[in-house]
Amino acid sequence: MGLKHLISIRDIGKKEILNILEESKKMEDVLNSKKTLKIMEGKILATLFYEPSTRTRLSFETAMKRLGGSVIGFTDIRNTSVMKGESFRDTIRVVSDYGDIIAIRHPCEGAARLASEYSSVPVINAGDGSNQHPTQTLLDLYTIKREIGRIDGITVAFLGDLKYGRTVHSLCYALSLFKDVEIRFISPEELRIPREIVCDLLERGVKFQEMETIDLEGVDVVYVTRIQRERFPDPNEYERVKGKYKLTLEHVKDRDLIIMHPLPRVDEIDPRIDDLPQAKYFQQSFYGVPVRMAILKMLLDQK
Amino acid sequence: MGLKHLISIRDIGKKEILNILEESKKMEDVLNSKKTLKIMEGKILATLFYEPSTRTRLSFETAMKRLGGSVIGFTDIRNTSVMKGESFRDTIRVVSDYGDIIAIRHPCEGAARLASEYSSVPVINAGDGSNQHPTQTLLDLYTIKREIGRIDGITVAFLGDLKYGRTVHSLCYALSLFKDVEIRFISPEELRIPREIVCDLLERGVKFQEMETIDLEGVDVVYVTRIQRERFPDPNEYERVKGKYKLTLEHVKDRDLIIMHPLPRVDEIDPRIDDLPQAKYFQQSFYGVPVRMAILKMLLDQK
Amino acid sequence: MGLKHLISIRDIGKKEILNILEESKKMEDVLNSKKTLKIMEGKILATLFYEPSTRTRLSFETAMKRLGGSVIGFTDIRNTSVMKGESFRDTIRVVSDYGDIIAIRHPCEGAARLASEYSSVPVINAGDGSNQHPTQTLLDLYTIKREIGRIDGITVAFLGDLKYGRTVHSLCYALSLFKDVEIRFISPEELRIPREIVCDLLERGVKFQEMETIDLEGVDVVYVTRIQRERFPDPNEYERVKGKYKLTLEHVKDRDLIIMHPLPRVDEIDPRIDDLPQAKYFQQSFYGVPVRMAILKMLLDQK
Repeated sequence: MGLKHLISIRDIGKKEILNILEESKKMEDVLNSKKTLKIMEGKILATLFYEPSTRTRLSFETAMKRLGGSVIGFTDIRNTSVMKGESFRDTIRVVSDYGDIIAIRHPCEGAARLASEYSSVPVINAGDGSNQHPTQTLLDLYTIKREIGRIDGITVAFLGDLKYGRTVHSLCYALSLFKDVEIRFISPEELRIPREIVCDLLERGVKFQEMETIDLEGVDVVYVTRIQRERFPDPNEYERVKGKYKLTLEHVKDRDLIIMHPLPRVDEIDPRIDDLPQAKYFQQSFYGVPVRMAILKMLLDQK
Repeated sequence: MGLKHLISIRDIGKKEILNILEESKKMEDVLNSKKTLKIMEGKILATLFYEPSTRTRLSFETAMKRLGGSVIGFTDIRNTSVMKGESFRDTIRVVSDYGDIIAIRHPCEGAARLASEYSSVPVINAGDGSNQHPTQTLLDLYTIKREIGRIDGITVAFLGDLKYGRTVHSLCYALSLFKDVEIRFISPEELRIPREIVCDLLERGVKFQEMETIDLEGVDVVYVTRIQRERFPDPNEYERVKGKYKLTLEHVKDRDLIIMHPLPRVDEIDPRIDDLPQAKYFQQSFYGVPVRMAILKMLLDQK
Repeated sequence: MGLKHLISIRDIGKKEILNILEESKKMEDVLNSKKTLKIMEGKILATLFYEPSTRTRLSFETAMKRLGGSVIGFTDIRNTSVMKGESFRDTIRVVSDYGDIIAIRHPCEGAARLASEYSSVPVINAGDGSNQHPTQTLLDLYTIKREIGRIDGITVAFLGDLKYGRTVHSLCYALSLFKDVEIRFISPEELRIPREIVCDLLERGVKFQEMETIDLEGVDVVYVTRIQRERFPDPNEYERVKGKYKLTLEHVKDRDLIIMHPLPRVDEIDPRIDDLPQAKYFQQSFYGVPVRMAILKMLLDQK
């Protein structure tokens, strides 16, 4: 991988991304073959979750255990030395002497980067506030590659909350590394994609459009996100927006596209869509396991 | 086993029960021989505990690890996506893509059945509210078989709270599958066995008696349950009842019977009974491990 | 080891301590060689943490997993049968039928000893209130042996809260088993070493001094402890004392000594000390793993 840690998708280039996707495919094949891997036998992943995230934690644990390794960690800082006033730095230094690799989730932006400076072992960012969650971006890319067959030349529509959704921002950046990708941002005025992301795309010469109405004509991937009630001071406004940006059967039923969602979802996708062949969000969630297996293996091989 | 999931003891017949008990004996023999099993190597049990139950959770985890497998899961819904509004269905679909088998405990009746409809892997009901807890019933039957040598023809006295105790209801049903079993219900008026259980036994032609005084003459098994304070509006009434239905040395000392209890207990058994050869409740608790090993193995073999 | 359980450092003699340190060195060598051990394959450690202690728990879990074993347990009594009124005795009896060895932490003095009386498997005290934490004492001794090369004939200064720090009391006792050890107690008047420890040292003929000013002349080991705010009714008094007993660069920079701390620390050590070769507290924390591996192995071999 050429990298000691995986903190931000911006730290890795297209070639490294493709290597990870290739290794992920090998891992998926092993999973499907039901063969037992032992390449992490005797190795320990430390999962340091300073805020709850069951899905991400279980996906990392599954990945490590499927590789034959073990897991230690915490999921609740009320039960940690942090509560006794221990510094973040000390916690990381101590834990990096226990485990062979660390996956950290923290509410503060930059926490994973800081951890990588104190750690004697590789650190994977499993989400730091509204900032980065690179394994999510990699599994998003893997889903596109596996389900469409290519990333170059595709058109991706992002739908919903484009302002606060870190998965959207990171995936935009990652897509900009590929050739001839087009992006369509569909959101209410209040939740438009931030100007710095737009500037970034302009600089990189990525074609994109912004719109307030759902139009999926020519789209290969529609990436839906959850609109959170707490973003709206006025509950009526929330209800209005929520209804308008909900994906329905009519939007997708005869289209040749795939539907993705980082999950958990609430009601932004009509449940009848779940049974369509276009619905790939559970597949996407499953792909988190082989992608994280690949990342764990590559970082430890590197080391 | 012929079954994809284990949701209710009512889903399986006598033949299947006997198969499970036979397989459990093999597992117990392996445990006693201290041999290391690897038949679940690379396999993952997901324990989804929507309400706390340390004993059941540790027993399942022990069973899976004794088989050479791994465990992922959660024990506290405060730290799960459920708190972000995720549907039960989505959680089950996602987790069933991570693990090879699921054990679920949930406060709502029917939750495990629902989970089995969404899951792509076998689901074991580890207790759904006041409804079912089939692995408990199977370990109860195993305890009787191992300690008495047979189930046909025995007399079982249930003592204490017969109204709310789901273990009692399920075990009654299971016993009704065996030949010439007699049942004695000993409880205060307020906590009598429900009429639907009685009807069920009548229909199946099982001999039974109801009484308010402890009489263990001719009994092979006395199955004690905890009387919970919160069942009584009047604390004095609780104290009176509790004293009257406490098992004492005098009740059992010269009798050829075994004493069972699903645990945890509070003070419904005189502690001096613990040292009697008739006391089998800790043995019963231990039997939970080989029985759950057998169930895990049989459901995964099936799959 | 000659012992069935490890409850108090006072239960084991010098010879047994040296055996444990020797076995710990072998474990450290295996860890450094990155070889995979399987000597605990199929074995289960039950970690019963009745009060939180992430560091100790993760260290025990790491030790067991590095040996090839598995771990079950709980870290939060809110989720246990204890909350249903179950007796401590019953919990221990049940869990000792699940696991092969138990590590218990409990807020009450004597809890681990009591557990060892009910358990059918070896019990390790992982801290019982202000009383004992023998694996900490053993890793402290191991740190001294590894970093200085000997324990006989050394001079150890204890700094900070000597009144409440159980690690200090236990290590004093353990040091008294070795030849020609000298001890220097440096603390505010309010946090002096208790008179019973002093009496004990007098009886055993150990040379010691008490002082209120930091003087590290001739010292081989300075063992720093955290001064807790809650020990002082007057916050101003706390601030005064804290400043006076903080270890600074000036105290240690040109001295041939090692600095230890049981961690977590707050601000009783100047952070610039972390980069000095004398700073051994992270090394000390790491040594917790091989020492606990040795203890797990020796207790299970014994059994």
